[in-house]
Amino acid sequence: MKTFGSFCKFFVDEIRIRCFFASDERLDMAVQPNPVHRAVVEHLVRQAVYQRMGKPVPATGQAPNPLVVNVSARHCHLTQEAVEALFGKGHQLTPMKWLYQEGQFAAKETVTLVGPRSRVISNLRILGPCRTLNQVELAYTDAIALGFDIPLRQSGKIEGTPGGMLMGPEGFFEMPDGIIRAERHVHMHPEDAAHYGVSAGDRMKLKIGGPCAVTFDEMLVRVDESFKLEVHIDTDEGNAVNLKPDTPCELVK
Amino acid sequence: MKTFGSFCKFFVDEIRIRCFFASDERLDMAVQPNPVHRAVVEHLVRQAVYQRMGKPVPATGQAPNPLVVNVSARHCHLTQEAVEALFGKGHQLTPMKWLYQEGQFAAKETVTLVGPRSRVISNLRILGPCRTLNQVELAYTDAIALGFDIPLRQSGKIEGTPGGMLMGPEGFFEMPDGIIRAERHVHMHPEDAAHYGVSAGDRMKLKIGGPCAVTFDEMLVRVDESFKLEVHIDTDEGNAVNLKPDTPCELVK
Repeated sequence: MKTFGSFCKFFVDEIRIRCFFASDERLDMAVQPNPVHRAVVEHLVRQAVYQRMGKPVPATGQAPNPLVVNVSARHCHLTQEAVEALFGKGHQLTPMKWLYQEGQFAAKETVTLVGPRSRVISNLRILGPCRTLNQVELAYTDAIALGFDIPLRQSGKIEGTPGGMLMGPEGFFEMPDGIIRAERHVHMHPEDAAHYGVSAGDRMKLKIGGPCAVTFDEMLVRVDESFKLEVHIDTDEGNAVNLKPDTPCELVK
Repeated sequence: MKTFGSFCKFFVDEIRIRCFFASDERLDMAVQPNPVHRAVVEHLVRQAVYQRMGKPVPATGQAPNPLVVNVSARHCHLTQEAVEALFGKGHQLTPMKWLYQEGQFAAKETVTLVGPRSRVISNLRILGPCRTLNQVELAYTDAIALGFDIPLRQSGKIEGTPGGMLMGPEGFFEMPDGIIRAERHVHMHPEDAAHYGVSAGDRMKLKIGGPCAVTFDEMLVRVDESFKLEVHIDTDEGNAVNLKPDTPCELVK
């Protein structure tokens, strides 16, 4: 089998997917948002080891940043207005777990999503901080179970998408639209984009090794000064490849 | 995007996955096991059209048989003994829908699978005819929801795999082992294997196009005189690529 460059993943939600936490991540998250990720440490150690051995650093080790591949379980992004309708006037989301992207968190708060066939998904995790639009991101397996026919969309591009009803402990909130399957994508800082020779909106491939090896051929590139190098796939994709912390992953132009 | 060669899929079960039936397949299945599959007709028409136009038939059209890609939803294979324990003495499975492989069918009968955390999957479809071993095939999403940690196995290789409890209308049946994720695979007649230049046990790639394009890199080749050319992937894989009847698929060595 081909040698791959990076070995990592974690999850935004423990529901329905296998979940891996370093215990210190669990303990530190309340006091220390975004501690140094294990992938970053491994990347630095790998570079140092090759240097110490006097051997040339392999291509993946020369990348400015390590590749982190995350499975994004179903979740929603909400406006402050929606949060208050669901959890009460003045309610603020409480961070439960800090995510890899700076300042992003899985909130303690969850909601119930009601589908058109009166089926529900309970404990739908809210990701914070609040945004300027309401969006629910599901895998197709979730959507089919619920009875939604949802489109594949880039996050934020929700025009013409189906809506739904959210239930919280203090009330309901009706979304006129915003239920999507998020397009698989990679977040990149401009220095990562330069290293891989890609621009925002380009497509790359993500090669995943192991017994369920797959190449994801259409990986949308998103570039921003605030982004850390991170791939987001959904639970269908993550379970299709049985992604684990030591599953080899490689980003290819 | 690359041009792919074949456009087809159908499902063994309508639960949790989108399902496509030609209406005549629904009507005919009781009286006519394994009618000519639409993919076979399309393959013949494609060959005839190129011939009529006086143009060379493209590589995929030259294959002896069309490529059929099926999503295999969670299901089980049972022994006659297990069927009788679950449905009563002397009970015979009743075909509900004939599958693409000759003589194989989705039975009217379903069972309930009880997981180790007392969660259940109800309406687990039985595929017939009866076999000499009991085996439950789940996607990882199913297994995680149930609380099973299941291994990836070739069908029939169930030594050391976890077991579980099945419930039917007339009784229980305990499986000491046999709960697996079936390895993605392609069934081939020896003439297909000769055409693609592969042997039983080899691995091929399945390229799937469209907006959720994926290359499944480890596709086990199974060869038998009785087999028709057919790929089986599970619901995680099918939903990861959003497989639909017109999704382009290509088998590559």
